[in-house]
Amino acid sequence: MTYLGLFALQHRGQESCGIVSLKDGEHIHHKGLGLVADNFTESELDRLSGKTAIGHVRYSTTGANLLTNAQPLTASLKEGPLAIAHNGNIVNAAEIRERLKKEGAIFQGTNDTEVILHLLARDRAERFEDRLTNSLSQLEGAFSLTILTSKKLIAVRDPMGFRPLSLATIKDPKSGEKAWVVASETCAFDLIEAKFERDILPGQILIIDKDGVKERQLPAKSQLAQCIFEHVYFSRPDSVVFGRGVYHSRKSLGKILAQECPVKADLVIPVPDSGVAAALGYSEESGIPFEMGIIRNHYVGRTFIEPRSQIRSFGVKVKLNPMSAILENKRVVVVDDSIVRGTTSKKIIRLVRAAGAKEVHMRIAAPPTTGPCHYGVDTPTKEELIASSQSLEQIREFVGADSLGYLSVSGLQKAVSAKPNEFCAACFDGKYPTELFGH
Amino acid sequence: MTYLGLFALQHRGQESCGIVSLKDGEHIHHKGLGLVADNFTESELDRLSGKTAIGHVRYSTTGANLLTNAQPLTASLKEGPLAIAHNGNIVNAAEIRERLKKEGAIFQGTNDTEVILHLLARDRAERFEDRLTNSLSQLEGAFSLTILTSKKLIAVRDPMGFRPLSLATIKDPKSGEKAWVVASETCAFDLIEAKFERDILPGQILIIDKDGVKERQLPAKSQLAQCIFEHVYFSRPDSVVFGRGVYHSRKSLGKILAQECPVKADLVIPVPDSGVAAALGYSEESGIPFEMGIIRNHYVGRTFIEPRSQIRSFGVKVKLNPMSAILENKRVVVVDDSIVRGTTSKKIIRLVRAAGAKEVHMRIAAPPTTGPCHYGVDTPTKEELIASSQSLEQIREFVGADSLGYLSVSGLQKAVSAKPNEFCAACFDGKYPTELFGH
Amino acid sequence: MTYLGLFALQHRGQESCGIVSLKDGEHIHHKGLGLVADNFTESELDRLSGKTAIGHVRYSTTGANLLTNAQPLTASLKEGPLAIAHNGNIVNAAEIRERLKKEGAIFQGTNDTEVILHLLARDRAERFEDRLTNSLSQLEGAFSLTILTSKKLIAVRDPMGFRPLSLATIKDPKSGEKAWVVASETCAFDLIEAKFERDILPGQILIIDKDGVKERQLPAKSQLAQCIFEHVYFSRPDSVVFGRGVYHSRKSLGKILAQECPVKADLVIPVPDSGVAAALGYSEESGIPFEMGIIRNHYVGRTFIEPRSQIRSFGVKVKLNPMSAILENKRVVVVDDSIVRGTTSKKIIRLVRAAGAKEVHMRIAAPPTTGPCHYGVDTPTKEELIASSQSLEQIREFVGADSLGYLSVSGLQKAVSAKPNEFCAACFDGKYPTELFGH
Amino acid sequence: MTYLGLFALQHRGQESCGIVSLKDGEHIHHKGLGLVADNFTESELDRLSGKTAIGHVRYSTTGANLLTNAQPLTASLKEGPLAIAHNGNIVNAAEIRERLKKEGAIFQGTNDTEVILHLLARDRAERFEDRLTNSLSQLEGAFSLTILTSKKLIAVRDPMGFRPLSLATIKDPKSGEKAWVVASETCAFDLIEAKFERDILPGQILIIDKDGVKERQLPAKSQLAQCIFEHVYFSRPDSVVFGRGVYHSRKSLGKILAQECPVKADLVIPVPDSGVAAALGYSEESGIPFEMGIIRNHYVGRTFIEPRSQIRSFGVKVKLNPMSAILENKRVVVVDDSIVRGTTSKKIIRLVRAAGAKEVHMRIAAPPTTGPCHYGVDTPTKEELIASSQSLEQIREFVGADSLGYLSVSGLQKAVSAKPNEFCAACFDGKYPTELFGH
Repeated sequence: MTYLGLFALQHRGQESCGIVSLKDGEHIHHKGLGLVADNFTESELDRLSGKTAIGHVRYSTTGANLLTNAQPLTASLKEGPLAIAHNGNIVNAAEIRERLKKEGAIFQGTNDTEVILHLLARDRAERFEDRLTNSLSQLEGAFSLTILTSKKLIAVRDPMGFRPLSLATIKDPKSGEKAWVVASETCAFDLIEAKFERDILPGQILIIDKDGVKERQLPAKSQLAQCIFEHVYFSRPDSVVFGRGVYHSRKSLGKILAQECPVKADLVIPVPDSGVAAALGYSEESGIPFEMGIIRNHYVGRTFIEPRSQIRSFGVKVKLNPMSAILENKRVVVVDDSIVRGTTSKKIIRLVRAAGAKEVHMRIAAPPTTGPCHYGVDTPTKEELIASSQSLEQIREFVGADSLGYLSVSGLQKAVSAKPNEFCAACFDGKYPTELFGH
Repeated sequence: MTYLGLFALQHRGQESCGIVSLKDGEHIHHKGLGLVADNFTESELDRLSGKTAIGHVRYSTTGANLLTNAQPLTASLKEGPLAIAHNGNIVNAAEIRERLKKEGAIFQGTNDTEVILHLLARDRAERFEDRLTNSLSQLEGAFSLTILTSKKLIAVRDPMGFRPLSLATIKDPKSGEKAWVVASETCAFDLIEAKFERDILPGQILIIDKDGVKERQLPAKSQLAQCIFEHVYFSRPDSVVFGRGVYHSRKSLGKILAQECPVKADLVIPVPDSGVAAALGYSEESGIPFEMGIIRNHYVGRTFIEPRSQIRSFGVKVKLNPMSAILENKRVVVVDDSIVRGTTSKKIIRLVRAAGAKEVHMRIAAPPTTGPCHYGVDTPTKEELIASSQSLEQIREFVGADSLGYLSVSGLQKAVSAKPNEFCAACFDGKYPTELFGH
Repeated sequence: MTYLGLFALQHRGQESCGIVSLKDGEHIHHKGLGLVADNFTESELDRLSGKTAIGHVRYSTTGANLLTNAQPLTASLKEGPLAIAHNGNIVNAAEIRERLKKEGAIFQGTNDTEVILHLLARDRAERFEDRLTNSLSQLEGAFSLTILTSKKLIAVRDPMGFRPLSLATIKDPKSGEKAWVVASETCAFDLIEAKFERDILPGQILIIDKDGVKERQLPAKSQLAQCIFEHVYFSRPDSVVFGRGVYHSRKSLGKILAQECPVKADLVIPVPDSGVAAALGYSEESGIPFEMGIIRNHYVGRTFIEPRSQIRSFGVKVKLNPMSAILENKRVVVVDDSIVRGTTSKKIIRLVRAAGAKEVHMRIAAPPTTGPCHYGVDTPTKEELIASSQSLEQIREFVGADSLGYLSVSGLQKAVSAKPNEFCAACFDGKYPTELFGH
Repeated sequence: MTYLGLFALQHRGQESCGIVSLKDGEHIHHKGLGLVADNFTESELDRLSGKTAIGHVRYSTTGANLLTNAQPLTASLKEGPLAIAHNGNIVNAAEIRERLKKEGAIFQGTNDTEVILHLLARDRAERFEDRLTNSLSQLEGAFSLTILTSKKLIAVRDPMGFRPLSLATIKDPKSGEKAWVVASETCAFDLIEAKFERDILPGQILIIDKDGVKERQLPAKSQLAQCIFEHVYFSRPDSVVFGRGVYHSRKSLGKILAQECPVKADLVIPVPDSGVAAALGYSEESGIPFEMGIIRNHYVGRTFIEPRSQIRSFGVKVKLNPMSAILENKRVVVVDDSIVRGTTSKKIIRLVRAAGAKEVHMRIAAPPTTGPCHYGVDTPTKEELIASSQSLEQIREFVGADSLGYLSVSGLQKAVSAKPNEFCAACFDGKYPTELFGH
């Protein structure tokens, strides 16, 4: 089940994956680089037997020794084995790390999650639950966690609720027994036919063991900070995130975009697959016909060899082929979810023009990305983000569009029904909801 | 370039792939099982140097020793090395094979293409071109071929023109020299930025060497038999096949389907990715809104491990997730390109209902598939094809739809502008355009 | 059993290996590059089921496309599948090949064995046995063969008996049924606990099927030509070859070498492992104490990476380490089985001196290698063989020994009890027993 | 150089291997399961650049997650990265581990070495050298260590000197600069052409940095405990260990064994390769001729597939083949280095008899192994050691020899010139030189 859940969440991280299972009070684990389907063989899954397990997929970052940073992290503590899987980013991890090193702690990897293990091991409280609350209270930033001990499964969502974390139940088809399932997105529940129960609330700690589920609460923060980018891009369209269907959010983004940035055109085409839902919304609202004018090749492997002869825009072309038969002599609205560095958009627009489009109007179903995320989404530095330093007109010129339109921040909030002080849109509006500790 | 072309044609075959290049009169070759991107490393491509090459991708069939059947087939003949890549199926291959064996020929594999090598080696005509004409004239069925000798590149399309084969030109970015490119589908030209020139005509033999292109013609047959299924399913939507854009054909199939099989409904959704264009056409014609109501997971690898617990319809579910948020309480038209055995459609309809759809109306953008293809498309036997023995109502009941509608054969012909005696629709209408030689 | 037999014969070829088994009249095969233990998994062996099988190991040669040349070669002929495994070399293969190509035959690989398949397929005799005799009678050179048809296992040794081929019987531990086993060396019988029966005689064809064993005889040649090099180097010391134990032969080589090339010294040391038996013989005969003065490292893998810093004689050193503790200040006799190019001997002598030896006397338990083998042993060209152009004194100077002694040809014959006209020693005496057909 | 050194020491551990290099104050590391030659590619070695490095090979133990226990262990401490490679076993590691866990330390693996990292991280002394002395002083048992920090290379040998550790110098072939090399055995120096300088003395700490070598000394213990088993089996014969050549030791063991356990026989044969030197010594002393009567097959891979049919003693047979031609009708002395469980000896004797030996006299060049090693040699439990509970006569009967003789403990000491209170022979005499802390 854990394997299948990771498989459904593969889009959240392709760098490495891992599972830790609990059997007779002992942990069994397996981690590997790359995709879930490439790392777990049948015999490996057999070895990972037991009735409880946690798993993790990690997204691509630079740097060597990636396997050391693969999660779940594991360690042996005084009460036995402990494993932890973390979605998010702890902004004061470096500060805590330096303090702990001075006190004699030794660190294995370079990731922020390891400090949680150390805080837990060092806290002097008698009961594990108290040590957990004490430790987690010291953290600032985003942390949706699953923790496995020799007896319990624990799920935690940070007090500001940056990342999603949901709870479901599943029935054993044979015994009829009910079991608990926790996952970052509800699409994982769909695959294993678990029944979605509810979101784990910001600040909630769920402690699940043979006696059932107990709840604890971390001290509240002054505001919530649910990541609006989950709706814009990160989550799968078939997930329900923060109480709202992602596909619906994306269609709404497209509709409001059509209201805010209308244009006279013959066709609306998405950049597949990320722009499909927003393009449908744009088409519906504007009345301009929708076409799948760019075909995506899904056979692109990770080992693809770049040709030496200079085929222009090759990196994009091998994935995306705009169809002349559709685009020839047309005024085209191209809808995508974001412009990061601008180079990909530039290549796509060039290909669309080369396929015969008369006019190319770029429409982005989100506001300009002006700042990096410090809460767990892999974004480039501020310097690399084209919208951090360039005006709308400069970006338009760079990407080579006839016109360029972004959604407004208020349009974004409207599209996802975001209440004030409940969402984080820092990558768009620069309002980081925590201290940044030198980031 | 050949590698990139194969990559663009990967959808035509995933079982094995191969390239043979020509350098200083010698052949260099590499073949492997599986995908193009998994089989050619940079050093392998370096080894395959030279100015001329042919390649092949082969689709999945049963049986062991698959590497022996991988193409291009190679052999050493009296005039030197010869390699051949074949798209299609020669229906009288078994007859020729038995005759040649009696004459002392030895066969390596079990595929039909090997007889061409033997016919070429045994023919007594002086000139290679004459031997080629003599040999190919003995074949019945489908053969789009590329042949590489120690001096020439030859392209052949059988006299009935079953499979597509097109010609393009490309300019060397440095020297400005023009070179010829031949491929089964035009999407291969798009990727390498070659310029489409024209289709190779039925019965044409193009002989390309340092002196340019010469043409020969095989004796004509009484009719043409271009494969209509290329438009329905086989070709990529961004290709132009038999002079017509495939995406346009598929949208037309959907439009005519909407005219022939209308229904009152709230939504039209495609089975992704194969039903997308037809569903857009159906929606456009019927006015019923289009939604991407089923999300496809593209991370499914070939090594995926089936769960032991009985998750119903798992094989389909791991790829396709219908969204309750879209489908809940809706009357839904589900559009797909075909029903083969019926089991997949049954699972999809079950999942769509489980996601909350009130009514499910299945619409197939092609006529019922009643017979196998003997000309190179990998279809199950007649017995396995549900439409070969079941009535429309029986199929509807089996797949569990509230209503079921297929396109008519005449609707299909209209959609692709097929002229009488130019297309083969034998899998739909049973009119096989050649003798079947016991198949 | 076939797998184990190949394993015992691994020293005869490490480039590629293969097995073809017979089940229900069909052939099942598997071939691969590299060692037997690296190429056959348990599931692969399961797939190769059946009651009869043949296998082959092939030694390292240069050139690409090695898998195409891996044996057993297989083909489909008019009477069904045929597989052939060949030890030796057919000297008139190129002539036959050219003739067959002109008659319309197509060749897959570049090896000499493939002509046998074609001769068999083309012969017009009614009975397979007659076709076999007709075909094999056209061959000149060395061929110990095993052939598998859809019904029979056939073993052949060429009329001059170049390569060994022996017959054994084995009892099924359960049924008590007796089965026949054929192998190049008797060490294969030892491993599977088969009972050695006898050598297959020069020119004999054994046809084994459910009715038992039938014998046929190829036309006799004017002399026998059993390969003396099998005793010197090629066969395993624990095999009995041409009726004589190889270990005993090698000790005898060392004893006669001690008589022919005596020297005053403190120690006799072998180059391990090839020189051990001869060094023991030299020590026994001369009375000079034997020591394992050079230690061999058996962990050397095929992927070993050469260091960049220039460690002198590294290629040899990584395998062989002479011990100062033994050699310091000693007069040492180093015994090896041959000097090919001279470069390895030069490095060994340098290392032995660097370890402190006062004098180094090289003794070779064979005559100078003056010509290449054309009958199946992988030797360098005449130009590369140091003894083909250099005098004893020149070689001594090149390798840097204080003295150098080779065995005489007559000493060699005496050591292996070779009767005149029964052995081939062409690599030592230049008397090739067949026409060479341009080799 | 480190890679080559590990390669030369491969016999000391085949389970896993690793290297950590130091470049610009940062550590670069690579670890893997299996052999050195299979784990380091050229690009991997390129990545491990820098001027200083340590490496480790680990022997096979049971248990999963072997990669976690692979060494060198690495961690990030307050003064930067630290890596440690350990030969030996710390007998009070479990005690220290429990204490540290109670103080909040978290452990990654299950090996004893990790406690050293924690002790170092937690010690409050100002200077690293003092922390090192404080930490190592708490350890009981065997520890030859190499430690790499961001600035220094440190070598340590425990105060009782259980395991060997030697120092050499090497000259850069280009710059002529001298560098220091530390290794467990001198055979590593031979391969890289380093000059052996001296053994690192028991209790010595060498701190090597850009300013040269500094020495420190750990508090002395009441006796030394150099492992006598290094001479009997563990070290390579071409190494000089504890000031004495191992090959010489083994020959002496054989000679004294011949004096202590003489027998009338025709041949002395070794069990290859471990018994060769002792058998030569036995032959020399007794005057009974030496023969390589058992041939060892070095092609045995780790993936070898056991046959299903019951070939008796197969596991041994696939490696060792006794030659009838030598053994037929002979009285044979078989010399080996030890009997552990007795099952292998039993199989060898059975094979020797099956090859025709008339009498088989087993001679072991060491005393009976009666207890496990707690200082770093991988031995079975006391219960599994046949000599821990069976009499000489019982063992003889079990292995099926006509006579059985072991070396005496005093004979062993004499053979390696062991002074009282300088060697540990606990596996033979039960006198463990440290407290065992519950082992």
